[in-house]
Amino acid sequence: MAHIRLPQGIPGILGPMAFSPETAKPLNELADVLLRAPNSLSPADRELIATYVSSQNDCYFCQHAHGAVAAYRLGGNEQLIEDVKANFQSAAISDKLKALLAIAGKIQKGGKQVTSEDIAHARSQGTTDKEIHDTVLIAAAFCMYNRYVDGLATWAPTDSEMYRENGKRLADSGYVASTAKLVGA
Amino acid sequence: MAHIRLPQGIPGILGPMAFSPETAKPLNELADVLLRAPNSLSPADRELIATYVSSQNDCYFCQHAHGAVAAYRLGGNEQLIEDVKANFQSAAISDKLKALLAIAGKIQKGGKQVTSEDIAHARSQGTTDKEIHDTVLIAAAFCMYNRYVDGLATWAPTDSEMYRENGKRLADSGYVASTAKLVGA
Repeated sequence: MAHIRLPQGIPGILGPMAFSPETAKPLNELADVLLRAPNSLSPADRELIATYVSSQNDCYFCQHAHGAVAAYRLGGNEQLIEDVKANFQSAAISDKLKALLAIAGKIQKGGKQVTSEDIAHARSQGTTDKEIHDTVLIAAAFCMYNRYVDGLATWAPTDSEMYRENGKRLADSGYVASTAKLVGA
Repeated sequence: MAHIRLPQGIPGILGPMAFSPETAKPLNELADVLLRAPNSLSPADRELIATYVSSQNDCYFCQHAHGAVAAYRLGGNEQLIEDVKANFQSAAISDKLKALLAIAGKIQKGGKQVTSEDIAHARSQGTTDKEIHDTVLIAAAFCMYNRYVDGLATWAPTDSEMYRENGKRLADSGYVASTAKLVGA
């Protein structure tokens, strides 16, 4: 049972967002800019960073919700999502994305964990300032979303098909649009 | 030196915000709603929660920036800010705020650290669902802001007077308005 009275039957972050539409608005706008706006990092790569951080924070809802978006964007490759969560260094992803996931993993532990060597290694793989900035902020933002979801003890469904359908909708329509009805926007 | 090329001489989170105005917009809107919108928790109490979490995350810029807003709102009582950061249980604040700071401190460690007992204790001090919700989201949001500031190794001035002036401006004008010129809004 959630720590506060949330609307019944609404999974994960959507419960608190329905409870508090005024905060849902900037939270969803931030997600759209970070994960979907035009960027040299693909939306799939950015969703993978979000998924990995959510997994490191042990947030069931977020890692499955964003893992499903990433898998859908990768043509349904759900195994790759599991590989990245289990050990991204041995997953079938680019060395550049591995360097960014290493930075994201440091951010999950704390901002000061990121070293000049982490940054230099990412640069040696061709990352830009914007890609480093966005990786840091995606990882930081999921340290917020994950704590919001778990700190209120929200309900997380375990039905994979629900996450698949949700992932397709989020990928096709985005975060603000997908929650507009829920938050009364 | 910051991990990416940021505009020179702009302190703390303002550097990355100037670098990335499109993410600055929802970040500042979230801060205004969480810390300044009408609420049964006073703006000073909400800034104290933000300051305490930033202190626990060892983020120099955020704890001094928001500590200065809280102190200004409390008539310049800078000692109280230091007392809350050092040991809020013995600080001259209400038992209700102590119960909320305890929840915020758990969120800083991780969303799942919050127990039903923490919530029951806060309720016994008269907190509402909205106050618990807002405390969780303020604490979660500062786990993001702090990581954003320190994860990019931004510059934090140590001049107390700068934070005092900045705190007054933020308290009087708010987060979106105070950064409008910087982010080109």
